[in-house]
Amino acid sequence: MSLKANDPSRKTWLDLPDNTDFPIQNIPFGVFLTRDDIITIGTRIGDFAIDLGALHQLGYFKDIPLTDDIFLQDSLNDFIADGRKTWRSVRNRVAELFDAKNDELKSNQKDRDTVLFTLDEIEMQMPVQVGDYTDFYSSKEHATNVGKMFRDEENALLPNWLHAPIGYHGRSSSIVPSGIPIHRPQGQKLPKGADEPIFGPTRHLDFELEMAFVTTASNHLGEPIPSEDAESYIFGMVLFNDLSARDFQKWEYQPLGPFLGKNFGSAISPWIVTLDALEPFRVEGPKPVKKLLPYLETKGKKSFDISLSVAIKPDNGEESVITKSNFKYMYWNMSQQLAHHTVNGCPVNSGDMMASGTISGPTPESYGSMLELSWGGSKPVKLKNGQERRYIEDNDTVILRGYCQNHEVRIGFGEVSTKILPVFKS
Amino acid sequence: MSLKANDPSRKTWLDLPDNTDFPIQNIPFGVFLTRDDIITIGTRIGDFAIDLGALHQLGYFKDIPLTDDIFLQDSLNDFIADGRKTWRSVRNRVAELFDAKNDELKSNQKDRDTVLFTLDEIEMQMPVQVGDYTDFYSSKEHATNVGKMFRDEENALLPNWLHAPIGYHGRSSSIVPSGIPIHRPQGQKLPKGADEPIFGPTRHLDFELEMAFVTTASNHLGEPIPSEDAESYIFGMVLFNDLSARDFQKWEYQPLGPFLGKNFGSAISPWIVTLDALEPFRVEGPKPVKKLLPYLETKGKKSFDISLSVAIKPDNGEESVITKSNFKYMYWNMSQQLAHHTVNGCPVNSGDMMASGTISGPTPESYGSMLELSWGGSKPVKLKNGQERRYIEDNDTVILRGYCQNHEVRIGFGEVSTKILPVFKS
Repeated sequence: MSLKANDPSRKTWLDLPDNTDFPIQNIPFGVFLTRDDIITIGTRIGDFAIDLGALHQLGYFKDIPLTDDIFLQDSLNDFIADGRKTWRSVRNRVAELFDAKNDELKSNQKDRDTVLFTLDEIEMQMPVQVGDYTDFYSSKEHATNVGKMFRDEENALLPNWLHAPIGYHGRSSSIVPSGIPIHRPQGQKLPKGADEPIFGPTRHLDFELEMAFVTTASNHLGEPIPSEDAESYIFGMVLFNDLSARDFQKWEYQPLGPFLGKNFGSAISPWIVTLDALEPFRVEGPKPVKKLLPYLETKGKKSFDISLSVAIKPDNGEESVITKSNFKYMYWNMSQQLAHHTVNGCPVNSGDMMASGTISGPTPESYGSMLELSWGGSKPVKLKNGQERRYIEDNDTVILRGYCQNHEVRIGFGEVSTKILPVFKS
Repeated sequence: MSLKANDPSRKTWLDLPDNTDFPIQNIPFGVFLTRDDIITIGTRIGDFAIDLGALHQLGYFKDIPLTDDIFLQDSLNDFIADGRKTWRSVRNRVAELFDAKNDELKSNQKDRDTVLFTLDEIEMQMPVQVGDYTDFYSSKEHATNVGKMFRDEENALLPNWLHAPIGYHGRSSSIVPSGIPIHRPQGQKLPKGADEPIFGPTRHLDFELEMAFVTTASNHLGEPIPSEDAESYIFGMVLFNDLSARDFQKWEYQPLGPFLGKNFGSAISPWIVTLDALEPFRVEGPKPVKKLLPYLETKGKKSFDISLSVAIKPDNGEESVITKSNFKYMYWNMSQQLAHHTVNGCPVNSGDMMASGTISGPTPESYGSMLELSWGGSKPVKLKNGQERRYIEDNDTVILRGYCQNHEVRIGFGEVSTKILPVFKS
């Protein structure tokens, strides 16, 4: 099926703000509560949210084989499970309906009023019910930086790292969409020089600049997904903020990996941008340093040129961008991650989420966490208001943004914005 | 609400086999396909499966506030979310209906024929849709044994172990009920003395003798569950076989913990035995070696005396019991595990599963994995047929069993039986 929706010359009859992340070439998918408190699957063009459930009820998708309630759901899981042909048909049809040359919907004011919402009329929800969430660790720069600080300056990268996309299972239940505040967690930490841990609020609260991909139901228990087929099982991507309590993490992570240092909250941008929409921004990733085992070999452009940034906004203050990175720095691509994850027969379901791990670039200005930016707290980061940050403080809002841009089109992810509240009081 | 269902003097009008794990005092919950291919929630007494959906439709639960379709579901998640009062009411009512002194159902042959199934007429399913699965590491003996083999004979137990129930997030998608075979996984491993990994089938396929508890929806994001309240959020327990590929695990586990060495398959016994049914078997666990942080303190008998065993059955051969252990050896109890898991505000949902970690006892005959029983492959385990096992071989079936017994009653879990198939061929 063609990617007609990607046509860069297409204009829409909707009014768009300049430089929007959501031109008619994007057509991402999300779930929202409407002004009537109905939950629906929708898309976004410019600053309009579009109710796909209502469009379907009005007959605008009659030529696509879809069940009646496919969009009247509180998650995209079933729609995603329908597979790539369905996603493409719906994206192409939405592009057609909002095309400046098409009067079909434009001229029907009643239907327009039914399906179009301004952003302040809706409330974005989690786009998928995440069955399993995996967090990879696929930036060589990040793994090296953390290895230097947590372990050994000389042998920062562990021997397995260059041979496989190392990852761990994370907690699905604490993934929230942009806008949901998260309390500073309490837990165990080992004070410097002490033998025994103490209990209290984390003093090293961090973000991690990541992206995540969402899968469709793919393999069965026991069946690997080959790397060359992996992309057909990837629905799309979101920005992912993997909040971390470094003091908890350092104390607990051996031998079984991150646990309470991570599972108090992660946040995502609410619109899933399809892999199809990202097609014009394919690039090759870094060349492998070591010869790869055959199941991890991939050909061609399997990475994407996605500009990323993180800003911190102090309470009632102006935001400061503190790092700029790019998804293309990832050493391991998504096809390799999915092939590795399933090579032992591990099944993947519709709505599963796999995050990249912190995306750090090669220079200190492109590091993807406070741990790295402040080098373990030793180099405070300056904010515009004159304040400094070693880690995140109470009432700070952390905002991740990402977009792709070429001379023809900009495809963006919007943002994931998360305010940190003080410790929870019962 | 009283635990009337536990009355040890109660007899049932059903014929029971001697020494059954499922007397009328057990009344566990599960999900099965009936002879008419309908999926329903049910319970088990002796060797009868009882269709709770049908019982409810016939009006036998009319005095309990239940939605019409509460049992006509493919998972127990909604029933579990209804909370402890509902579980207790239903267990008490089932006990009453099958009580030898009660003619109500006994005398109605038509209704009996509708609700009762022999075990060969049904097919057990996963009892819950597992949102998140966590695996703890709470046996001191196991952690010490693994530490000696994987790391350092002298410092086997890492410093954090005595201060917190260490755990990691596992993979929900590959948890299957008893009876589902699992293929020997392929993956990366580092040959002895080599610098570079190779790819192939695991040569160190292992079981782990564990139990898991199933939670109800409890806290909200940000809110800890205090250890003294934790048990009210635990629905019940199952046997849990955490299959492991030791060669993969050893190569991959640093620094982020177990991943492909574990997520190819885990298996559970299909009947969830309620914590209520286990009440007569409470015992105190081991005394803490270190003073605990206050949020981990518990009072009274928070562990359970559950006899456990593992058998290996070679293809077409006789099974050999290779280890006998007991749940009461666990250093950290379930209340401590749940309090720790949520102390940072991590939310827990209905149907979440938390496994104990391998339950090894103090003697070599009570170790809970082949890794420990064969001491890293150096001491082969003898089977009845004269064969030896260092690890699990193709077409071996691994069977975990568990039960509690006192002078009045036996409450058992049945078994989880898993056959290992050769490597998957596409």
